[in-house]
Amino acid sequence: MFIREAQIQDFDSIWPIFHEIVASGESYAFNRDISHQEARKIWMESPQKTFLIEENGTILGSYFIKANQQGGGSHVCNCGYMVSSIARGRGLATLMCEHSQNIARELGYKAMQFNFVIETNVGAVKLWHKLGFETIGILPRAFNHPKQGYVGVHVMYKWLEKA
Amino acid sequence: MFIREAQIQDFDSIWPIFHEIVASGESYAFNRDISHQEARKIWMESPQKTFLIEENGTILGSYFIKANQQGGGSHVCNCGYMVSSIARGRGLATLMCEHSQNIARELGYKAMQFNFVIETNVGAVKLWHKLGFETIGILPRAFNHPKQGYVGVHVMYKWLEKA
Repeated sequence: MFIREAQIQDFDSIWPIFHEIVASGESYAFNRDISHQEARKIWMESPQKTFLIEENGTILGSYFIKANQQGGGSHVCNCGYMVSSIARGRGLATLMCEHSQNIARELGYKAMQFNFVIETNVGAVKLWHKLGFETIGILPRAFNHPKQGYVGVHVMYKWLEKA
Repeated sequence: MFIREAQIQDFDSIWPIFHEIVASGESYAFNRDISHQEARKIWMESPQKTFLIEENGTILGSYFIKANQQGGGSHVCNCGYMVSSIARGRGLATLMCEHSQNIARELGYKAMQFNFVIETNVGAVKLWHKLGFETIGILPRAFNHPKQGYVGVHVMYKWLEKA
């Protein structure tokens, strides 16, 4: 198992993971019926870099990194992570998040922000806390969960340098 | 003085206001040397609608409204407001913010979120609080202010419907 930077043609292999997660409508605020083309734009074209985790030729997960704002806010990056359902529980999210923090420092970012961590995604909230992210605040009823209705959303943040 | 929806050709008149505010680098996380074309995209093309305040043929302010997220987050809108330096202190921000909340309700939004209210922008923070927005959390050192260095950023939110 190793992490490498994704090339644009890798998206065809990332797409089944993306599609499965986004179609469920439970953890990302993207349109559930998003097209391959629009997904590729969000995951590969708009971000600064995209990485993937590969094992024996199979892609098990992916993440992107980009500046969260421009101008005076461009020292804070944003990442999004996805793990294939066939690879859950093997620590891939931890692996990717730690990798992304190193990449962020290499790219000159000073902090990382997650804009939209849905509170019903309990595993993610717990994991990001464990990895040093702080919940800055919870947006009340900011996500309409297909099964649970309006639920809160964590805004999370981690300073990557020594203060 | 009245508010009307902006047409794409109005951007040439909005641009001096946009440029003055963004070039100062003190209140928006956009590139300070942003081009007219890129600014028009951010202010007029990407948003759902853009409005302006006009008085005797002069444009004094403008705001946009758009969904802050897609999918399960698409009931929350986001707005950005700009007031010309020649019209400060006349209550235009209040006027536009109240107008935008009505427009938001008409468009079917249930809440409004400001992602990036810089804490040194004391007047804005105070005004949004007065207009019923809550500071959900403050992102520490998320903005690099040209005079004051790293400063905090408020994430603000208001539910527009009765709960």
